[in-house]
Amino acid sequence: MKSLAIGIDIGGTNTAFGLVDPEGEMYGESIMSTKQFPDFERYVEELYIGIQNLIRQLEFPVDIVGIGIGGPNANHFNGTIVNAANIVWQGVVPVVDKMKRYFPTIPVIITNDANAAAIGEMVYGGAKGMKDFIVVTLGTGLGSGFVSNGKLIYGHDSFAGELGHVIVNRTGRRCGCGRKGCLETYVSATGIKRTVFKLLADHTEESEFRYIAYNDLTAEMITKAALNGDPLAIEAYEYTGMMLGQALADAVAITSPEAIFLFGGLAKAGKYIFEPTRKYMEMHMLSNFQNKVKILPSGIDGKNAAILGASALVWDSIS
Amino acid sequence: MKSLAIGIDIGGTNTAFGLVDPEGEMYGESIMSTKQFPDFERYVEELYIGIQNLIRQLEFPVDIVGIGIGGPNANHFNGTIVNAANIVWQGVVPVVDKMKRYFPTIPVIITNDANAAAIGEMVYGGAKGMKDFIVVTLGTGLGSGFVSNGKLIYGHDSFAGELGHVIVNRTGRRCGCGRKGCLETYVSATGIKRTVFKLLADHTEESEFRYIAYNDLTAEMITKAALNGDPLAIEAYEYTGMMLGQALADAVAITSPEAIFLFGGLAKAGKYIFEPTRKYMEMHMLSNFQNKVKILPSGIDGKNAAILGASALVWDSIS
Repeated sequence: MKSLAIGIDIGGTNTAFGLVDPEGEMYGESIMSTKQFPDFERYVEELYIGIQNLIRQLEFPVDIVGIGIGGPNANHFNGTIVNAANIVWQGVVPVVDKMKRYFPTIPVIITNDANAAAIGEMVYGGAKGMKDFIVVTLGTGLGSGFVSNGKLIYGHDSFAGELGHVIVNRTGRRCGCGRKGCLETYVSATGIKRTVFKLLADHTEESEFRYIAYNDLTAEMITKAALNGDPLAIEAYEYTGMMLGQALADAVAITSPEAIFLFGGLAKAGKYIFEPTRKYMEMHMLSNFQNKVKILPSGIDGKNAAILGASALVWDSIS
Repeated sequence: MKSLAIGIDIGGTNTAFGLVDPEGEMYGESIMSTKQFPDFERYVEELYIGIQNLIRQLEFPVDIVGIGIGGPNANHFNGTIVNAANIVWQGVVPVVDKMKRYFPTIPVIITNDANAAAIGEMVYGGAKGMKDFIVVTLGTGLGSGFVSNGKLIYGHDSFAGELGHVIVNRTGRRCGCGRKGCLETYVSATGIKRTVFKLLADHTEESEFRYIAYNDLTAEMITKAALNGDPLAIEAYEYTGMMLGQALADAVAITSPEAIFLFGGLAKAGKYIFEPTRKYMEMHMLSNFQNKVKILPSGIDGKNAAILGASALVWDSIS
């Protein structure tokens, strides 16, 4: 009998879910709409049917050990999603309670996306065997999961790990959170777009980006341009890495991790993001910590990472 | 039979030690010179004799459960003190190994002063029952101990918790670490002296501090002046609290503590340090965290705090 965990990644548009073994091997996955189900009760019903279908398709007997869920603004302690932006459900959504009605015999655990990525890294990825590390997720915003003493730092209210909202410049860029100069206004898909537009304003050189409107520009386009050797795109990545490296130097002073994993879109720029991040982190770090902290690509990054991360909550909780 | 822990606080000038029960009650304490023993072997011998004398003076049978040591630049993982400034022993000092020769049957644990203060707060003080908190020690420099999930964050190399070396102003004051703008250049006994001299330079008002040379000025004098209503001293504390509050707002975003305890000299200024620290922390914090994090005076601060903190290592290790 094979032990499997159910991993569920709740996104604003779609929900992806799959069955995963303790080694991170996926045994069937599926996807359904999130936003077509403004009624959360109906959503859970549909999700239940989808999961039952996945299990039925297996050609061997299984023991479903638990359900791990990654979702935006998830509160790990009380099992809810709270006032998440970009999601159809308003207010406080009792995700774990509702799921337990359909799956009453197994544990159901929820956490936010970045924390799930960190636990996924620890259970299946590059942080296997590490007790102290950080995962930085570079998506539309910047998320992070801090692991110390082998455990994710949730803090007293489950909302720890907001590295994206550490302030790196008190008179800097406006942030969606209402403040100024948060790290994610510089280091994220949106942040690097802003940096490209700043560079277009500051410089005079011709660039392919001078033909593209702000709302048409994507981080993928910047990454592609950097990989093709475009100087402005490379400079934008250099600046992004500088801002990230400086902020990581300070984060290292607090938790002294063995490694920091970069996960998500911007990490695909390879050396254009990793090299400046390393360089500026070392340059700005207290000497105690220099040449000790690895900056690594995530070992689980890819199309299934979100499901893997969510499923890892289950294995981590019983380890 | 009473269970007692030995707490030892190794300072550059003196070493204080005492016998402490699980409730933080002290059963005898003593002090000896550190700097008169450049030979570490002789130092340990003297310390052993001092401890035996304390135990002999007790009028009841005891079970000595372990030895906890707080010392500068202590490495918790390998039991050494490493290149500590202001201490007579050079290089790497194998403190735990040497102590175990004299006390072979009980555990000997070492950590740095700020970490010992944090564990002391958890075992005997205001953090009893808390799983997530920070202790900030305001001495000549700024030390800190971060506790998450009920455990001190040592990081992978035992040197975590260097909040004093988080950079708050990249073009700011020179720090003893060789960099610029570290938090402790603003928030510490030395930092507030620097702030007083900055204010004397910027302002024209008469002040008692215009009659005192930099090297004659102490943080105690500034605290006393603030408590007597001196405007410049109060402004220096306001500025210190602002710098601390801003830095704590960022630290909260990472570990989301239930409370932050201020320990040491500057905390004696009471409302003059606590009020601006609270005000600026709240003002600069991500809204998620606002009105949730308590800023409190240490519950163990006082003349025995260092011995208490060191002894707490023993109770924490067996809890």
